[in-house]
Amino acid sequence: MHIDILTLFPQMIEGVFNSSILKKAQDKNKFSYDLVNFRDFSTNKHYKVDDYPYGGGAGMVLTPQPIFDAVDSITKNKSVKPRVILMCPQGEPYNQKKAEELAEEENLVFICGHYEGYDERIREHLVTDEISIGDYVLTGGELGAMAVIDSVVRLLPDVLGNQESAPEDSFSTGMLEHPHYTRPADFRGMKVPDVLLSGDHAKIDAWRKGESLKRTFERRKELIDERTLSDIDCKLLDKFKSRADKK
Amino acid sequence: MHIDILTLFPQMIEGVFNSSILKKAQDKNKFSYDLVNFRDFSTNKHYKVDDYPYGGGAGMVLTPQPIFDAVDSITKNKSVKPRVILMCPQGEPYNQKKAEELAEEENLVFICGHYEGYDERIREHLVTDEISIGDYVLTGGELGAMAVIDSVVRLLPDVLGNQESAPEDSFSTGMLEHPHYTRPADFRGMKVPDVLLSGDHAKIDAWRKGESLKRTFERRKELIDERTLSDIDCKLLDKFKSRADKK
Repeated sequence: MHIDILTLFPQMIEGVFNSSILKKAQDKNKFSYDLVNFRDFSTNKHYKVDDYPYGGGAGMVLTPQPIFDAVDSITKNKSVKPRVILMCPQGEPYNQKKAEELAEEENLVFICGHYEGYDERIREHLVTDEISIGDYVLTGGELGAMAVIDSVVRLLPDVLGNQESAPEDSFSTGMLEHPHYTRPADFRGMKVPDVLLSGDHAKIDAWRKGESLKRTFERRKELIDERTLSDIDCKLLDKFKSRADKK
Repeated sequence: MHIDILTLFPQMIEGVFNSSILKKAQDKNKFSYDLVNFRDFSTNKHYKVDDYPYGGGAGMVLTPQPIFDAVDSITKNKSVKPRVILMCPQGEPYNQKKAEELAEEENLVFICGHYEGYDERIREHLVTDEISIGDYVLTGGELGAMAVIDSVVRLLPDVLGNQESAPEDSFSTGMLEHPHYTRPADFRGMKVPDVLLSGDHAKIDAWRKGESLKRTFERRKELIDERTLSDIDCKLLDKFKSRADKK
């Protein structure tokens, strides 16, 4: 997968992409990227990329010219037009399903604004996807783009090793993950639950499923309604619910 | 505000924190940070920070010792115990309200895991807040912590200048932002709406409010139910709804 990132702050991105899984994915030739500073495409003699909003008001607005020209320069040599993703709070809320969808693509282009709004013509005529990573305001699109890219690249085949991956990742199963414990069995008087030390794998498995369901019920009830529960899950859930009612 | 960040990958963070608003906030003495590599606190002779999970299964689990000791070293000299925030997919979904709440604190500590799960005793006995930035799986907590920190620091008094801020930021008003346009009025045949060139500020204001409501209705209907609409908003909303029904 190749990703082009339009940004005015390329230095924000290199430290992240040269660490951890994103670095390993590049070493394995599964992922490559280019940083495109769209200021370089500005035809303005001072290399300006923003201007005052029509109609007045606070804040500056990114002008269409540098961003259109930067995207054109990326896509002109590609036989298939890549998806062009705008990071913005008005975008579609990002989730694991969208990550799986983007992981199928060969090329992606991300546009990261900073401070300002985008001229609406960028949204309407240039981008294919508008993505928001959550309902909070960030200074720029870079952190959002890096989060999306990390979540996508780790899904590419052969990127994650065994030690880095767990099939029970939260959201992959539709439930929050069960608790984990490791050595020591007693840390400052805080102990590991006996069942995990029992060696009884059927019991351990049942405990984990129950804890996963319980945690999801307690913290993110809305996730549970969306999936089909097994009979055992349903009985467990009834137990949690009746306990919660009694409180 | 001072923030300590526990991470195994400090190099992911510096490029981001030395750019843009986070840099400016430091230059203005509104924000300072320390990166704490908790591997340095491991009492293991190979500086290991993780171990196999009790009860078996894929993936490694972060052991309690280095993280407890690293947090102890940060908090021991502070008169008020700071909030200790764990970045994890099982956490409370982050939003602008939580950003405003955290912006009231003087000290924050973030724990960023990587690949692995956390030993449950860290959650139960060390942290005060578990935060998730969204329903997708990231390789580590660093990108999430940086997103939270960016969203918090930009709310601190005197951090944002006029050009960087807009009182109509999405989520601050409870609605998605209206479209923005800037020069040129005609870009490759794509034109700015006439109303914005009219100079009629009452008309412009009404158009913006309507577009903001329309966009929120079309993209994030669930946000609208949560706030009280003015009479004008209600009439506009009825218009959108009846149009949507006809489709």
